[in-house]
Amino acid sequence: MSKVKPIGPIPAGYESRDGELSIGGTPARALVAEHGSPLFVYDRGLLHSRIQALRAAMPPQLHIHYAMKANPFAPLLAEMVSLVDGIDIASGGELVMALQAGADAEQISFAGPGKRDEELLSAMQVGVTINIESPNECERALAIAASEGLQPHLAARVNPDFDLKGSGMKMGGGAKQFGMDVDLVAASVQKILDAGAHWRGFHIFAGSQALKAEAIIETQAQTIALAARLAEQIGHRPEHVNLGGGFGIPYFPGDKPVDIGQVGTALKQQLSALPEILSETQFAVELGRYLVGEAGVYLTRIIDRKTSQGETFLVTDGGLHHQLAASGNFGTVIRRNYPAAIATRYGMPSQEIVSIVGCLCTPLDLLSDHVEMPKAEVGDIVAIFCAGAYGATASPANFLGQGPAKEILIG
Amino acid sequence: MSKVKPIGPIPAGYESRDGELSIGGTPARALVAEHGSPLFVYDRGLLHSRIQALRAAMPPQLHIHYAMKANPFAPLLAEMVSLVDGIDIASGGELVMALQAGADAEQISFAGPGKRDEELLSAMQVGVTINIESPNECERALAIAASEGLQPHLAARVNPDFDLKGSGMKMGGGAKQFGMDVDLVAASVQKILDAGAHWRGFHIFAGSQALKAEAIIETQAQTIALAARLAEQIGHRPEHVNLGGGFGIPYFPGDKPVDIGQVGTALKQQLSALPEILSETQFAVELGRYLVGEAGVYLTRIIDRKTSQGETFLVTDGGLHHQLAASGNFGTVIRRNYPAAIATRYGMPSQEIVSIVGCLCTPLDLLSDHVEMPKAEVGDIVAIFCAGAYGATASPANFLGQGPAKEILIG
Repeated sequence: MSKVKPIGPIPAGYESRDGELSIGGTPARALVAEHGSPLFVYDRGLLHSRIQALRAAMPPQLHIHYAMKANPFAPLLAEMVSLVDGIDIASGGELVMALQAGADAEQISFAGPGKRDEELLSAMQVGVTINIESPNECERALAIAASEGLQPHLAARVNPDFDLKGSGMKMGGGAKQFGMDVDLVAASVQKILDAGAHWRGFHIFAGSQALKAEAIIETQAQTIALAARLAEQIGHRPEHVNLGGGFGIPYFPGDKPVDIGQVGTALKQQLSALPEILSETQFAVELGRYLVGEAGVYLTRIIDRKTSQGETFLVTDGGLHHQLAASGNFGTVIRRNYPAAIATRYGMPSQEIVSIVGCLCTPLDLLSDHVEMPKAEVGDIVAIFCAGAYGATASPANFLGQGPAKEILIG
Repeated sequence: MSKVKPIGPIPAGYESRDGELSIGGTPARALVAEHGSPLFVYDRGLLHSRIQALRAAMPPQLHIHYAMKANPFAPLLAEMVSLVDGIDIASGGELVMALQAGADAEQISFAGPGKRDEELLSAMQVGVTINIESPNECERALAIAASEGLQPHLAARVNPDFDLKGSGMKMGGGAKQFGMDVDLVAASVQKILDAGAHWRGFHIFAGSQALKAEAIIETQAQTIALAARLAEQIGHRPEHVNLGGGFGIPYFPGDKPVDIGQVGTALKQQLSALPEILSETQFAVELGRYLVGEAGVYLTRIIDRKTSQGETFLVTDGGLHHQLAASGNFGTVIRRNYPAAIATRYGMPSQEIVSIVGCLCTPLDLLSDHVEMPKAEVGDIVAIFCAGAYGATASPANFLGQGPAKEILIG
């Protein structure tokens, strides 16, 4: 017989009504009946409660930014613009989307190691903050600004000389394509100042998807210390320091949510005892996945139930073309099961071991591998949780001619 | 110092002209000047020569099918329709594209574990062959045909009781979502026959991306034997047997091309000594990657050259949103370097160790890790080879607001 493999923890906020998963107050089957399948459902209420809880835990003066790369779906982005203090973008395409969603240019900052000249220009024209990633990019930006007669808002993105321990993705602590090594920062900031551009401060992003509060606290302390050291070296107060993100969400068996109370308490302490040179600095955290990841569910209908060599497969009309990360093919070395459920038999006892696969004709298209579920039939709906971040846009929607899934924001 | 890592072998057919990579007779810089960057370039001449060489090696009566999931770019697909004997599709979306590219319905066959009712219906309406993946799908197809008064062309997809040794992706030899287990096939074919539908034969696909001729030969022999065994059990001659594919291409250091001469010689022998029940059967191989993979190059411009902790990074305007597999994030456990070169310094001696990254603000966006290259500057063009299959449509084009790369067919 096949061996059961565990699934990740289902996020809080999803309830069972009459044996069916309810999202934002609406049963899964009704959502699919109205909007079709496969379907990404984002719950507005969960976005609000996540940000409320975060604000309650964090120092009141801390700004919260949304890294829109996590989920740029227009209605969700517009909602986030109304809830956060800043929008962090990573391309000229995201700049257009952020402005369309109602973000003010002064709320927007732009990071990314490969900004084209035309992206730098359009960012400067609308007046967003550009996080400068290299001495060469600094020169390019200043040259474009000079030739266009613009006074750009430029921050220095720093490749920190430490990493975020336990993070899923390290963005500092070694040779990296992101930001400038610590010893290169002062010279570039000096060039920004000499050119008469507006120096905004620092962007220091050490890593993402960490779950241990202690690791995040340590990284934030190191980040503040590094910002102070660099400011002293430059001899100017930074207006703004982006402390990066790093707050992860539980995807896999054994993962526990970040203790944001602990992080907030420590950060309050740190911000109340700042070095003098940072005493007037506005601090921000930049979060993507943490804000939106758990507020999204991917729903996909079962279109076949089949047995092969004693194992049961539920074949759905969705797949890795919408949920690449859940299939284990994006940013993970060992495939593990995302939280999942039979939405139309939600909360019912497990009855069998099944593998849930997508409709693509490739063995990579595996959503849930040997999981215990209530017995599902053709027409039942599968829910894959943690689909609010790095889902739709981080997946190859056109693979095998399938096309994108519909997305909705409800509640 | 950083340690060099090897790159995969550059495919045959790419030459250096005046120190620059020439594709289909046009230098890379001219292609980018005309069409922009990033750019997928597919070489029509290489498609032709690949298929000519394959036909010369294979038994003359063997049909060659193109599995369009590998690359559905419309001009390339139209070219392939003119060169091969059949087009294998995996969705209703691909059906539309295949017909638009000029394929006749009788040339098309449709496989995939999760066909929706409306896909089955449209496939039957235009008269393509449907490879039936499960007893349940068989019943669904026959019910739809009956209610619409259609006589569908149905083949039985078999989950073979053996695998393709050394294949990158196994699609048989265990519990699988593809096809029907061997012991289920006869009953479903009997239902097809009883319903008065047109039974086309078998589709037996054991795996893909194998490089060893011996393994492919063994699998083809097993496939023919299995088809004969099933045909005897059913008591009818199959008109058509799709032997699957399995021919890989070299991506990584040490990979050697498939010896198609050896495969062809063995298959000639096998087809000349067929069991009587297969003596009138038309055989086909279904190839995607093998036909088009090496005919494509992804070109991307260097927009930054930077040093971090003694290591050099070339930052390009492309990345994993176009070339997910080359970044090591699709279908591979251990990341290895695809064949790559500085297209604008092609054939020049290596001078330094660099990492070539994309423009996305994520550490996953790594195209070439610690490779030896001639010294390249901003404005130089990077070529990533083996970009003709599972490139553009197998990558998350909208990630970070980037959008798709342009594709062209030349030569």
